[in-house]
Amino acid sequence: MSDYCPPYADMQFVLEELVGLETLGTLPSLAKISAEDVVEILNQAGRFGSEILSPLNQIGDQEGAKLKNGVVSTPAGFQKAYKAYQRAGWGKASAKIAFGGQGLPRLITTVLFEIWNSANLSFALCNTLTDSAVTLLTKHATPELQTIWLPRLVSGDWTGAMAITEPQAGSDVGALNCSAIPDGKVFRIKGQKNYISWGDHDLTDNIVHLLLARIPDSPHGSNGISLFLVPKFLTNQKGEVGERNEMRCLSIEKKLGIHASPTCVIEYGSNKGALGWLIGEKNRGLSAMFTMMNTARLAIGHQGLGIAERAFQQARNFANSRVQGRNQKGKLVPIINHPDVRRMLLSMKAQVEAMRALCYDTALSVDLSENHQDSKIRALHKGRVALLTPIIKAWCTDRAVEIASINIQVHGGAGYIEQTGAAQLYRDARITPIYEGTNGIQAIDLIRRRLISDDGFMMNVLIEEMRQFDGILSTVKGNELISIRGRLAESGAALSRATHQILNAAKINPENADAGAVPYLCLAGTVLGGYHMARAALIADTKLSNKKLDNPKFYEAKISTALNFSENILPKTAALEKAATSGGAVVANTRIDLI
Amino acid sequence: MSDYCPPYADMQFVLEELVGLETLGTLPSLAKISAEDVVEILNQAGRFGSEILSPLNQIGDQEGAKLKNGVVSTPAGFQKAYKAYQRAGWGKASAKIAFGGQGLPRLITTVLFEIWNSANLSFALCNTLTDSAVTLLTKHATPELQTIWLPRLVSGDWTGAMAITEPQAGSDVGALNCSAIPDGKVFRIKGQKNYISWGDHDLTDNIVHLLLARIPDSPHGSNGISLFLVPKFLTNQKGEVGERNEMRCLSIEKKLGIHASPTCVIEYGSNKGALGWLIGEKNRGLSAMFTMMNTARLAIGHQGLGIAERAFQQARNFANSRVQGRNQKGKLVPIINHPDVRRMLLSMKAQVEAMRALCYDTALSVDLSENHQDSKIRALHKGRVALLTPIIKAWCTDRAVEIASINIQVHGGAGYIEQTGAAQLYRDARITPIYEGTNGIQAIDLIRRRLISDDGFMMNVLIEEMRQFDGILSTVKGNELISIRGRLAESGAALSRATHQILNAAKINPENADAGAVPYLCLAGTVLGGYHMARAALIADTKLSNKKLDNPKFYEAKISTALNFSENILPKTAALEKAATSGGAVVANTRIDLI
Repeated sequence: MSDYCPPYADMQFVLEELVGLETLGTLPSLAKISAEDVVEILNQAGRFGSEILSPLNQIGDQEGAKLKNGVVSTPAGFQKAYKAYQRAGWGKASAKIAFGGQGLPRLITTVLFEIWNSANLSFALCNTLTDSAVTLLTKHATPELQTIWLPRLVSGDWTGAMAITEPQAGSDVGALNCSAIPDGKVFRIKGQKNYISWGDHDLTDNIVHLLLARIPDSPHGSNGISLFLVPKFLTNQKGEVGERNEMRCLSIEKKLGIHASPTCVIEYGSNKGALGWLIGEKNRGLSAMFTMMNTARLAIGHQGLGIAERAFQQARNFANSRVQGRNQKGKLVPIINHPDVRRMLLSMKAQVEAMRALCYDTALSVDLSENHQDSKIRALHKGRVALLTPIIKAWCTDRAVEIASINIQVHGGAGYIEQTGAAQLYRDARITPIYEGTNGIQAIDLIRRRLISDDGFMMNVLIEEMRQFDGILSTVKGNELISIRGRLAESGAALSRATHQILNAAKINPENADAGAVPYLCLAGTVLGGYHMARAALIADTKLSNKKLDNPKFYEAKISTALNFSENILPKTAALEKAATSGGAVVANTRIDLI
Repeated sequence: MSDYCPPYADMQFVLEELVGLETLGTLPSLAKISAEDVVEILNQAGRFGSEILSPLNQIGDQEGAKLKNGVVSTPAGFQKAYKAYQRAGWGKASAKIAFGGQGLPRLITTVLFEIWNSANLSFALCNTLTDSAVTLLTKHATPELQTIWLPRLVSGDWTGAMAITEPQAGSDVGALNCSAIPDGKVFRIKGQKNYISWGDHDLTDNIVHLLLARIPDSPHGSNGISLFLVPKFLTNQKGEVGERNEMRCLSIEKKLGIHASPTCVIEYGSNKGALGWLIGEKNRGLSAMFTMMNTARLAIGHQGLGIAERAFQQARNFANSRVQGRNQKGKLVPIINHPDVRRMLLSMKAQVEAMRALCYDTALSVDLSENHQDSKIRALHKGRVALLTPIIKAWCTDRAVEIASINIQVHGGAGYIEQTGAAQLYRDARITPIYEGTNGIQAIDLIRRRLISDDGFMMNVLIEEMRQFDGILSTVKGNELISIRGRLAESGAALSRATHQILNAAKINPENADAGAVPYLCLAGTVLGGYHMARAALIADTKLSNKKLDNPKFYEAKISTALNFSENILPKTAALEKAATSGGAVVANTRIDLI
């Protein structure tokens, strides 16, 4: 397995120059945090990720989580690393100060999670789930429940898990059967759930499940689902762990990747029923769960970024050190000298940087949507986040799979050998387009819930933002930026046309819109990625022309990477536009019996 | 693991209607074979593949090949299946009758290998290697060596393997160090080779390695490499297995996939040197090996086809049986009803059928290049095969990885669980863009050896063939065919322009051409795939308009699948053209220190 080294320079660039770290200072409700603080936090996190978590990544893969005699155990070293993570307070980063958290802005915790995801995706997933559970309980639980459960989740004494899926209820959550029978103030939960990531493990002495179930006499389908808190162990009022609740891990899945993350099948209530506490309103469980899922969906997009970054690093390191073949002058050279290897590396680098810009930019919107003084700006950013969430989830995870695959290809035969570690990234990455709603579900969500709900308003705000940026670019000289501007304008126009068409289709022929949804989402992700890369190129251009710089190479690289994005990635938007519109109609009109 | 059922209908269609099985009858040097014979052969092979080989596929993956006390053993059931394969005479299919083979045309054996590859890629690989070794010895070995070695390889008593790669000599074969010291009429081989697929195993009592090594005083680099036959066991004149040769399996690799295929590190000559016999001329080993590698490269393309077909079948079966979600009328339905699932399935189906057409069509060209009476036609088809070999190898294997990934996506969470078998196809497929020359090497080979060598003549013959077909299509009515014609004309023009540009670049800026090589190859594969799909659509259209058919649905599906290819796959050619030309130039001009 390769080493992992956080890409500090690009992280800082995106934070400070592209997204605007200083904006956080204008948000009075957030804890003040200086640029120097951020550097220090990232350095510490980077050391923890590269020195503690990263070396466990391959061990975790090889050993995997195990179930023996009803006990789920994690691979060697995971318990110790978890204690260290907890001790260092990393789990508290995003939670509100009132519950023992540090209240760091989402923009900063997004960078932290990029590091954890790069270093060790399986490990990071556990904390992502706890983080999501904290978000959910903060928004929906009663103060009484919050007092008992939140501090221990925030401190990392306990972890969170989501118990949603049942064998017959996967993407169609509304089909679930798990039952919750009132018993005084609490409920008795009975049923079986699967695909519960970190549903059971040996890292902490309690695990808090957020579980969807149906109270008798509730309506069928999605409107009859309620949300419950179901802990592995019951607690007393002081929060001390007591009797075991009625839940039992029946099996853990043998998966393609993320082997260190136990994916559990859990049976609730083999006798009287597991005790569960209602979170939010009866029958409104799905809507409460969605607040958690949206946070989690962004988090999965960040997993895509993390894996892609690590795959890129590994490929670049290998290409710089592996000597094979000769250059045009007949000299033996590292393979990075071969143009086709450069092509692969540049495609990885360009897309990883675009993903990072898109993820961090949206994270700032999360902060603005929650903390800005002006309610209009809060609303605007709320809409922006809502629109970008499915795009980040799906576009970044699809890219991660592609980039992990390119990493294997750069390695040649060595990439196919497990020891190298490239194969693990490829296997691990493959879950990200699936969980938290498949990318197909994300794309349909994008169209049905985000585009249609405001008749394309928010997407058109983004498109208009790009048009205004085009105006700024029009004043800039320099061949690279002129080329970048041209391609971005073309693909922005494609996104604009496709948005118009898919909105029309959604009204007249919803099946056509559904069939074009995935290419449409990919089109939007690609154009937005190109937009951020072009913004970065402009900043770099200005910097290079105005100042004597310590590190001109970084800015020169920004421009050449943006140019590579615009020349080799953006041209795909023409095909995506067709697949989203006319291609979707062809798919929708193809008879099932002809497939 | 899913069942495998050979796609008889499409195989027969491509053989009889699209490619022209009857052409084989015009080749006097080939054994006569009727259409009825072909049906019978395919049915028998289909039963063998689905009943004997396919059920071992998952066992092979789970158990894997093992090395213990110097002995390599295959998973449970492989020995028995191999004996059955041998007894049924499948190994003899392609070899010349003079050496005990059945002399079946390549067109037919290509269909057989599609079946073996779909059923069990690891198992099939062993026979692919033997087949390639037979081809090589038939062309290059002395009659004396042929008499000893060929009949036993043809009968399947022994298997073949290729010993090429050394740690420092992967894609750059010319860097190899393995030595061959003359000792009377034979040579003493010393050195270590890795990545030898099926280099050692327990299926047969001998294994014939075709090994590249350097005779002392040979020139450095590629021009100093000779080819040797190095058997695991020496034989007497009667071909009876005798003393063990000095070779030893040091280890087998733990790989991402094809676990049942032992990938060996082998040490030759720990004492006096392993005995080896020179094949072909001294220092001309690489050129002799290339005749084997070209056969093998087509064979790897057929592996891509086989895996992709199986992935498509599994996805379609799952989509037809998995009930989840509701249709527009609110009824619970199998997921094939959801437009996004249809989109995925159609993209798989369209590409699999295009791959099949391309593979079979080229296989007929192999037969024509070897057996036609007219030397001009032989030469034309030889050029055609030379041009299409890297395209088939790389385009089909890249598609296989993509299609295996879509199969996982269609399955959702279940696709990530190893038991389902979708993950195995995804892991197995990933080797195919790597071995027998990475797809990057194929693309550079396409440009440097195939395009430049005849200044684009053969590619332009294909483009002209497509132009003439466009003329035929122009007379046809029917909206589907008109749409198909339009898209094909656009993408054919893109291929024509890119060919012209990349030839120019190759002369002036070879690095630009190298950087655009992979997108160029993908462009060519996509356009040629679209061409064959359009041809199939025209045949189907004619059939549907002229006759009362027993199976109109098959022909209706051909048209709708071709339409899906042209609307959702062919539009990608615009982006590929850019990446092959202007995009390649940008990559080539990017400084290495900026990556």
